[in-house]
Amino acid sequence: MPKINGDRVIADLKRLAEFGRYKSGVHRPTYSPADVESRHWLAERFCEAGLDTVIDGIGNVIGRNPGAGRMLLLGSHSETQPYGGWLDGALGVIYALELARAFAEDADCAGLGIDPVAWADEEGHYGNFLGSRSFADMLTEEEIDHTRGRDNGMPLREALEGAGFAGRLRERVDPSRYIGYLEAHIEQGDTLDTGGLRIGIVETIVGIWNYRVVLTGEQNHAGTTRMVRRRDAGVAMVRLATRIHDRLPEIAGPRTVWTIGRMLLEPNAPSVIPGRAEMLVQFRDAELDQLAALERALRALVDQADSAGPCRVEIETVARTEPRLMDGGFQEQLEAAAERHAPGMHMRLPSAAGHDAAVLSYRMPAGMMFIPSLGGISHHWSEDSKADDIVLGAQVFADAAEKILCAAR
Amino acid sequence: MPKINGDRVIADLKRLAEFGRYKSGVHRPTYSPADVESRHWLAERFCEAGLDTVIDGIGNVIGRNPGAGRMLLLGSHSETQPYGGWLDGALGVIYALELARAFAEDADCAGLGIDPVAWADEEGHYGNFLGSRSFADMLTEEEIDHTRGRDNGMPLREALEGAGFAGRLRERVDPSRYIGYLEAHIEQGDTLDTGGLRIGIVETIVGIWNYRVVLTGEQNHAGTTRMVRRRDAGVAMVRLATRIHDRLPEIAGPRTVWTIGRMLLEPNAPSVIPGRAEMLVQFRDAELDQLAALERALRALVDQADSAGPCRVEIETVARTEPRLMDGGFQEQLEAAAERHAPGMHMRLPSAAGHDAAVLSYRMPAGMMFIPSLGGISHHWSEDSKADDIVLGAQVFADAAEKILCAAR
Repeated sequence: MPKINGDRVIADLKRLAEFGRYKSGVHRPTYSPADVESRHWLAERFCEAGLDTVIDGIGNVIGRNPGAGRMLLLGSHSETQPYGGWLDGALGVIYALELARAFAEDADCAGLGIDPVAWADEEGHYGNFLGSRSFADMLTEEEIDHTRGRDNGMPLREALEGAGFAGRLRERVDPSRYIGYLEAHIEQGDTLDTGGLRIGIVETIVGIWNYRVVLTGEQNHAGTTRMVRRRDAGVAMVRLATRIHDRLPEIAGPRTVWTIGRMLLEPNAPSVIPGRAEMLVQFRDAELDQLAALERALRALVDQADSAGPCRVEIETVARTEPRLMDGGFQEQLEAAAERHAPGMHMRLPSAAGHDAAVLSYRMPAGMMFIPSLGGISHHWSEDSKADDIVLGAQVFADAAEKILCAAR
Repeated sequence: MPKINGDRVIADLKRLAEFGRYKSGVHRPTYSPADVESRHWLAERFCEAGLDTVIDGIGNVIGRNPGAGRMLLLGSHSETQPYGGWLDGALGVIYALELARAFAEDADCAGLGIDPVAWADEEGHYGNFLGSRSFADMLTEEEIDHTRGRDNGMPLREALEGAGFAGRLRERVDPSRYIGYLEAHIEQGDTLDTGGLRIGIVETIVGIWNYRVVLTGEQNHAGTTRMVRRRDAGVAMVRLATRIHDRLPEIAGPRTVWTIGRMLLEPNAPSVIPGRAEMLVQFRDAELDQLAALERALRALVDQADSAGPCRVEIETVARTEPRLMDGGFQEQLEAAAERHAPGMHMRLPSAAGHDAAVLSYRMPAGMMFIPSLGGISHHWSEDSKADDIVLGAQVFADAAEKILCAAR
């Protein structure tokens, strides 16, 4: 069994967190100077581990084992959310690097290769899962042409130019090279932490369905327009949102989540009756049937509100990702490794967050492993995990990876 | 009776609408180049009418009759809402100019003076009622120091500098000079238009009470945070807003209006549970008791929501203007004049919009007259009134002003 070096894992995670440090967390948006520097630093570490390394045209850092016969692709993303946590995707990237080193150091692993990768922009500073989609051949040049920064509005082409990645080849997956893809990540929720567990084996990555609901009324003077004459889009929005929050629990599954995270009124002025309102509604569930039932309920509520008046109510699908099953064999190997190192302290669970593993699962068998997040805090600089859990997770991950590679002999 | 020149009134209104013309309306925000030019144009017209004229340190254009013994102050505001209507306050300013001319041309009016004024920033591009409050000695230098543009964020001091008004004296009211203040305006609502009436006599200008409601929850990941653990400030806001819209009709008077015109979620991102939400709630009514009852109901709903949890809910009073009674004698004279020129086609009504007359009423008797707005449209470039109604209104206004001045002999 390849033996991971726990001190080296922790030291590398801490070093990587220096790029864009913010309080006890990290602010490292994709293609920012801190992100670009960190990708060069990672590429150097991959080279030191004896890998043929490239930073490609979308910013993915990809290490390739030049000698092995059977290969696992391992990784996660290395940029962070704004003022985000130090582990998040960085954990999976450093695990991948450590496994590449541990396999190279273990004579029993001769012929078994780990290709580590740090994907670009899983966090969606420009577009969701840009790096893994590029590698999986699911990102066109046209989409790159039209994509702009979510917060800074900068064209993606300009950001790539500034990062020094423009003009480079975008690496594409060769599925025949790989047995599969494995990713480690912090849980981001509190299921493991509150349950006193140390390892989570992901069964499914949830589907995320997003809708835009637009309500059109009539903008008017908030003093001189009598109540009976009003067609207030803001009133229509809060009434419909309340009905959505009342109705969905009646049909939701035990792990369904739904969120109205964004609302806009126009003109959003204290003395003007809103003439237009907009809200974004999102569901997440691991079951396709459940998502479809939620959508039917949402559309029924929208239709009722539209028929009842006085505002027009329209719904538009923004994006629908499918729930993605993780490979059954990989789940068994991850669970068996967890049982060897932390008997009884592991569970299978769905991932309620999206991950690069969902994208890779369209091209090869994919598996995913979680370690606990303290208090379930995620996407915030105070996110953290216990050092013991970080080290244990790396060892479980290495053990499972070896068994998967050996089983494919 | 002073005879107004209808063609001259219409021609001046059309000329004034050239400053900042937008489609069939006007875009002339306070202190914009178009607004400054229009104030100089008005000052020239006031001079031509034989008045001592000044544009003061806040931008008010004030004409003073150098000879008369008894004076009425007459006017309204000359700036517009963004992409607003061509009449609105401009109507009252041109009426005031026309009355000054008509009184000067009529030998029977010897000794009766009209001081016309064009107030600055009634529309609140910088601060509500800046011009009339300055004249009424209700605007401090400190408030000017701290005021910024609502839309452009520009410091008011800088805007006054750019307009060329900085360093000028701000004119203050001499109450002993005036019998009172009269203002004409379009109705902005549809009461006169739908009733087939031609003149409205304002009894009261409504009080406007504004509140900020802040809801504090916990910002979190929209995927990994289970529903039972959430403290979603957006959910709390739409539920409370719905309860407000359900409850207020039960206690509202026949002319009460309420509006939630502004809502903000933080961070307002599709995949983040809102940690903070804010909404502005406004009531308007002519009765102080009614406003107090509405406030009690709102505070009770806020307290209930705060007690019920899971979010903290707080309310803060933003501004409360008192309902202002218009002078009873002025109402009688306006009504008598309306009856002479449009028998049976007038009514008394409250003003649901705020007006400079409410500010002036703290310093002298004040009266207000409306002409019909087609379809009740206001604060939009398509706002309009019939030419006949514009001309009739000017004549009614002149007739009433003469009777008021004569009655004070």
